Amino acid sequence: MKRRMHLVGYLMAGPSWHNNGSWRHRDSDAVRATDPARYEHLARVMETACFDALFFVDFTGIYDIHGGNFDATVRWAGQMCLLDPMQLLTAMARVTKHIGLATTMSTTGTYPFHIARSFATLDHISGGRTAWNVVTSASHTEARNFGLAALPDKALRYDHADEVLEACFKLWQSWEPDALRLDQAAGIYADPSKIHYVDYEGRYVRTRGPLTTPRGPQGRPVIMQAGSSPRGRDFAGRWAEVIFTHQGEASAMRAFCEDIKARVARHGRNPDHCVILPAIDVIAAESQTEAEDMAAELDALVNPELGVAEMSLILGHDLSAYPLDEPLAFAGGGEGIQGVLDNLRAGGALGGLTLREAGRRYGVNQMTPRLIGTAESIADRLQAMFEAGCCDGFMVVPALSPRGYEDFCRLVVPELQRRDLFRREYSGRTLHENLFGEPIQPG
Amino acid sequence: MKRRMHLVGYLMAGPSWHNNGSWRHRDSDAVRATDPARYEHLARVMETACFDALFFVDFTGIYDIHGGNFDATVRWAGQMCLLDPMQLLTAMARVTKHIGLATTMSTTGTYPFHIARSFATLDHISGGRTAWNVVTSASHTEARNFGLAALPDKALRYDHADEVLEACFKLWQSWEPDALRLDQAAGIYADPSKIHYVDYEGRYVRTRGPLTTPRGPQGRPVIMQAGSSPRGRDFAGRWAEVIFTHQGEASAMRAFCEDIKARVARHGRNPDHCVILPAIDVIAAESQTEAEDMAAELDALVNPELGVAEMSLILGHDLSAYPLDEPLAFAGGGEGIQGVLDNLRAGGALGGLTLREAGRRYGVNQMTPRLIGTAESIADRLQAMFEAGCCDGFMVVPALSPRGYEDFCRLVVPELQRRDLFRREYSGRTLHENLFGEPIQPG
Repeated sequence: MKRRMHLVGYLMAGPSWHNNGSWRHRDSDAVRATDPARYEHLARVMETACFDALFFVDFTGIYDIHGGNFDATVRWAGQMCLLDPMQLLTAMARVTKHIGLATTMSTTGTYPFHIARSFATLDHISGGRTAWNVVTSASHTEARNFGLAALPDKALRYDHADEVLEACFKLWQSWEPDALRLDQAAGIYADPSKIHYVDYEGRYVRTRGPLTTPRGPQGRPVIMQAGSSPRGRDFAGRWAEVIFTHQGEASAMRAFCEDIKARVARHGRNPDHCVILPAIDVIAAESQTEAEDMAAELDALVNPELGVAEMSLILGHDLSAYPLDEPLAFAGGGEGIQGVLDNLRAGGALGGLTLREAGRRYGVNQMTPRLIGTAESIADRLQAMFEAGCCDGFMVVPALSPRGYEDFCRLVVPELQRRDLFRREYSGRTLHENLFGEPIQPG
Repeated sequence: MKRRMHLVGYLMAGPSWHNNGSWRHRDSDAVRATDPARYEHLARVMETACFDALFFVDFTGIYDIHGGNFDATVRWAGQMCLLDPMQLLTAMARVTKHIGLATTMSTTGTYPFHIARSFATLDHISGGRTAWNVVTSASHTEARNFGLAALPDKALRYDHADEVLEACFKLWQSWEPDALRLDQAAGIYADPSKIHYVDYEGRYVRTRGPLTTPRGPQGRPVIMQAGSSPRGRDFAGRWAEVIFTHQGEASAMRAFCEDIKARVARHGRNPDHCVILPAIDVIAAESQTEAEDMAAELDALVNPELGVAEMSLILGHDLSAYPLDEPLAFAGGGEGIQGVLDNLRAGGALGGLTLREAGRRYGVNQMTPRLIGTAESIADRLQAMFEAGCCDGFMVVPALSPRGYEDFCRLVVPELQRRDLFRREYSGRTLHENLFGEPIQPG
């Protein structure tokens, strides 16, 4: 069978995604970031283009590393997650039939029983289209909202996350697929012998079960992950079926991909059942000139100082005291996110640029590879990366919503379909079937 | 202004509500208990009849007190909450415009930040129609799903709940109503001086804030509560704006109502801003005979042994070893729910009846006052209770879904409207406005 690419659409329930100024564009829907209709529209657009899934980033705090306060974030529309994406996904599930529905939920500050129940509920509501992007949180800001004095260190967070996943998998398996009888005549609703206590007792996590929710059409969410540190990659090797990654160059993508697939195999899993999707920033238009004009329009809206504030976050280090018009003298070492940090280095943002210029570049798209052009030129580059074994598809992160998605789906997707690189219709019933051609094996 | 009654519709995301056999009825939708369309339909029915709100009971465990296992509950369709009601409410919000959307969430086993964020999200998605039924959980079953060895005692749970409410109120107030600027031209998204850290530090609860969610149209959920113990009533006096209660006779209703209103006043609040809604079980039909025939049909489906299992739960005491055909020799004292327990006593279920007969009676409607008849006869009784100061309206708990709601809305509501006892259209924008004629005061 022809190998085809997977496409997932990046979303955040807030005004800014990767481009920190596009919310100011006249065509932006970002001022309606708390309106569910915004997200329902995007879901329909992506489903019409047969995207595997759409995906919400989420974090449960307003970042305040820069200057020790959240002023830059809220004043200039930094990345914020204003609404609970699980609730938005429920609304989006009701206006779509096929597209996968993924969201982030942190294992730090959420009880496994709630995680399991939320995704099981969405499994039923969506007819089997859920995915969970597992994160362990990456900031003290979030930890403090949940009563912790500080974020536990990374190793402990991942050890805890392993237990959360183990507990959740047991909860999702606590109703056997045929436990529901629904026999009205005999008065038998379910078969108790097919419903099981979980009795999970870990070092950090305990839950008794069973889940309150019968097995859904998919059985459990597809597991997504985005860790880049060695411990994060090992966690991915054990659990992840979809990996979202920030990689700069093709060579870095390929190396990352090979490393992850090897880890998946070491955990006794099928490397084909782990699809790796680097983020790409796409600006597609009818002509190269039009696409470049749009990019220039968006570049002009970027806020360099907000970019610096966002770098503070990602470095886990407050840059507010560094002079804006000199090169940045900081070597790393904060609580930040490994993958994006590597990218900043590769993209030169920690090198000879002034801090302001680094902030501007970061504000454009967080150093994500940028594809600006016609359907053909963009499809050429996607095809080249895909066929060179750099990835299994892409996490599409448009600069401008909704137009970035509309243009990509209207222009680039049909070109990929003409090349037989992407599906023309959904073949599976569940997200897992659309990703891997088969249902999840009941455990 | 004419005093009018309030009506709220009782729901549970499971097969059985108060009548434990109606799921077997040919007209029941209970076999579709995991289908969101079931709940969307009920929301539309109740909104067409101008109900103040609909309300989900919720508990996050499958009850297993009876016999020390969950066999009776799952085999015979005892009360279970299969799906997360917050997610269902989101779907229901998208197919309605006016009706209030209430759900239960426990302060035991949920982080205040998640509670605050979920309701704030629903406030935006619904345009200001949320209510939170505050519970502290009432069973070890639930506590064990969240890693606790046992449920903390009631006094501690309510002390903790007070802190959770205090923390949530601060989180809901952390964005001032005009904090969002949305000035695309100037590049100013929000005014940082109008967004505040919460820095809540209680004995049990800590959260830093601010919430990730801007102030919604209502500002916070309306607070609902259902406690009947002295400590629960005092909690209600401090916080509750809607009270859901199980009361048997009119005299008990009136005494309860007077006690609560006095407690509300003692907390310096307006007693009119706390509406008390006793549960009623209604079977309405075109004629008295038809209604009685329906009641008889439903009675014939009741499962007495399941009723006994449900009594085990409500008493907090395993009745599985007591002989079914002898009167029950048990005086109370378990972990059970005070209000229903009082009702069981008043209804004679703990008196001279055999255990099987007590289970049968309990299985009919959990000893809720039962109104069977025509629109006129039911309206007469509701009017009498309402005008005698027994309550401010009713929590409608039909035996059979969806027909119980459809019949009540088609027959009884128009009769109440003809008597000018109930609204003919929604006058407010938010639930709080529909309940009390004014918006929530920004704190």
